[in-house]
Amino acid sequence: MSLGFIDLRVVESSAFIAAPLAGLTLAQFGADVIRVDMIGGGIDYGRLPLMPSGRSLYWTGLNKGKRSLAVDLRKPEGREIVRALVTAGGENGGVLLTNIATSWLAHESLAAKRAGVISCSIQGNADGTTAVDYTVNCATGYPLVTGGGTMEKPVNHVLPAWDIACAYQAAFAILAAVDRRRRTGTGAELRLALSDVAFTTLSHLGVLAEAELLGEDRPSIGNHIYGAFGRDFGTADGRRVMVAGISSGQWSSLVRGCGLEREIAALETSMQRDFSNEAERYEAREAIAALLEPWFAARPFDEVQRLFDDNRVCWGIYRSVTDLLANDSRVSAANPVFHSMQTAGVGTHLAAGNAVRATGAPSGVTGPAPLLGQHTDEVLGEVLGLDSGAIGRLHDQGIVAGPERDPTSGALQRSI
Amino acid sequence: MSLGFIDLRVVESSAFIAAPLAGLTLAQFGADVIRVDMIGGGIDYGRLPLMPSGRSLYWTGLNKGKRSLAVDLRKPEGREIVRALVTAGGENGGVLLTNIATSWLAHESLAAKRAGVISCSIQGNADGTTAVDYTVNCATGYPLVTGGGTMEKPVNHVLPAWDIACAYQAAFAILAAVDRRRRTGTGAELRLALSDVAFTTLSHLGVLAEAELLGEDRPSIGNHIYGAFGRDFGTADGRRVMVAGISSGQWSSLVRGCGLEREIAALETSMQRDFSNEAERYEAREAIAALLEPWFAARPFDEVQRLFDDNRVCWGIYRSVTDLLANDSRVSAANPVFHSMQTAGVGTHLAAGNAVRATGAPSGVTGPAPLLGQHTDEVLGEVLGLDSGAIGRLHDQGIVAGPERDPTSGALQRSI
Repeated sequence: MSLGFIDLRVVESSAFIAAPLAGLTLAQFGADVIRVDMIGGGIDYGRLPLMPSGRSLYWTGLNKGKRSLAVDLRKPEGREIVRALVTAGGENGGVLLTNIATSWLAHESLAAKRAGVISCSIQGNADGTTAVDYTVNCATGYPLVTGGGTMEKPVNHVLPAWDIACAYQAAFAILAAVDRRRRTGTGAELRLALSDVAFTTLSHLGVLAEAELLGEDRPSIGNHIYGAFGRDFGTADGRRVMVAGISSGQWSSLVRGCGLEREIAALETSMQRDFSNEAERYEAREAIAALLEPWFAARPFDEVQRLFDDNRVCWGIYRSVTDLLANDSRVSAANPVFHSMQTAGVGTHLAAGNAVRATGAPSGVTGPAPLLGQHTDEVLGEVLGLDSGAIGRLHDQGIVAGPERDPTSGALQRSI
Repeated sequence: MSLGFIDLRVVESSAFIAAPLAGLTLAQFGADVIRVDMIGGGIDYGRLPLMPSGRSLYWTGLNKGKRSLAVDLRKPEGREIVRALVTAGGENGGVLLTNIATSWLAHESLAAKRAGVISCSIQGNADGTTAVDYTVNCATGYPLVTGGGTMEKPVNHVLPAWDIACAYQAAFAILAAVDRRRRTGTGAELRLALSDVAFTTLSHLGVLAEAELLGEDRPSIGNHIYGAFGRDFGTADGRRVMVAGISSGQWSSLVRGCGLEREIAALETSMQRDFSNEAERYEAREAIAALLEPWFAARPFDEVQRLFDDNRVCWGIYRSVTDLLANDSRVSAANPVFHSMQTAGVGTHLAAGNAVRATGAPSGVTGPAPLLGQHTDEVLGEVLGLDSGAIGRLHDQGIVAGPERDPTSGALQRSI
């Protein structure tokens, strides 16, 4: 079950985050995503964190809702099976999603087998050289302005933000190419480099033009929000909250929520500033924060929460993930975007469906991540039309495998 | 000019990052995106950084390649124009993208005017309460593990990563709904909450299951890459590089690039670890880093670069944005993803086209951000079929406006 918007079969030959997350996105909207992996698993199959069974929570998180075909990708016959899957008939097939550049999946050779094929290759750099999120992020300037970072002590992000942005752009590009193919019959060879994703974002956010035209790098201002007012504050009982006064509505809510109208007005007068202008709030951020700090420090969290909610302040509390799970109903089965899932070798756990809510459509429940090779026979039969004899011979020759060859299958036999 | 994949007209009523970036994405693939704004500009029109003309580099970055209609959104007649644009005829119209919840753009009322309308509303929280990137991020756990962050000193990201992820998901959802509408004729009411975007991502990355099933929060390990080996190092001449040894191929390249095969093997022996296993590299990260640190500190950057490129190491250099622009050809007109753009009130600057490269398709040059109201007359004529008399009356009544009412038009008259 998925959102059921897309009628498409996608073959995914991938590893790590960007391509698998693109595949997950397509699957959560209804695509039949067939992930092909080396028998025994690819290079991302054992990535931390691991369950005692050996199953990776990283891999099972990113590969929910897909079918799995396990195949020996070193053998010519194995490669031919993947090529056949990508180029199989049906107007809704013929789509490859990959981040594994390999000549036997080159677009031209697929297009020669099937007109109108769509391939989307995610790369590190566009020239084919390697790059990962962290080796791209270091060049974006962000580590020098995050958390008070400097060139001597840059601060890397932990969230793989460029991988995530790349994933959704890749999924979007595939759908755009499918949309064009429906109208014109034309296929597409799409390439998306992680470094291009990051650097184009710098342009879209105005950061690149700022450097070019104003000669300015964004200042390293810790947790202050750039260009307006916002920062984190500690409460009397050791909690920490983030407040945002980006729009003037948010700003006046914050001042009202704190009951500091008079003090803020006095500060405006003494500084000769107009805080209804966001740029002037930004320039006065230290003085404003100095006024707010003792207000928070004098109040327990419960009181802050009540005053802020009553006044519709834009704010949030800092949480660890365990705290989030335990105490925030937005991350619970009470939120229809989440549901309980049973994953082999993992157990029963809360998992995310599609973040997009569509009124009147199924709520977007996503199936669990497959075992490696769980759908090998089904896919070979359905998509390639192989009969059980032919499938059996491929198993006997070690060209394909079923879930029994999953390296965590010992633990799995106990848990499924 | 755009990539030309999508044949669609989208009306965007938006502010800040997520919705405008979704609109930009649609525009860069070929959609005709009509941004409607209050005469004089919405709440994001003056956001920093600003040019001396008063034009915002933030706004012009996010609104490239769109058409602009300036309209008095407080007047019933102004609202009716926007509703008419959203629901205008043609099978490729009938799409609204917004993050401004307002009853006069409610889905049901649009659907009553035009069957098959697709609306996508971006929200803070799904219950309609306000949230921005920073007030969602604080609850994700990331500020407690970024840059050595703690609850007492959390580290906010500066890159608005959730807004960006939300933008691309919204653009994807619209296209998926359009794909379904082409097949079935059905419209869609889509809602996407920023907090759902963030928290579902925690599930996709395995972070949520880790907390639930293993009771573990990701550790706060500074610039170390979780789950494998990778960190930043300083060179003899004061440059700083990031290296990644996530896959075993990347790891052996790194060891070979540094010429530390013997030392690393000795460390494995003494620690009784097998560094070909990524989890064991991760556990030994401090000891490995201690071996690498003096190697970097003894060498100038040029030597590191040569050795690393010769050995295909996965690495990158830390740069400020001004440094990036001056010294990295990936961010220059030599990269077809970028091109020179002339934006009124801004001047000539480097700007990003579409990050996705499509072989044989136009290279994805994006037009500049419009002036507010630059396309008012054109859109009213083309989409609503109004004649010049009717358009003139709307101007006279102050219901719509052209670019002369752009608040930066004084500076613009000098620059265009």
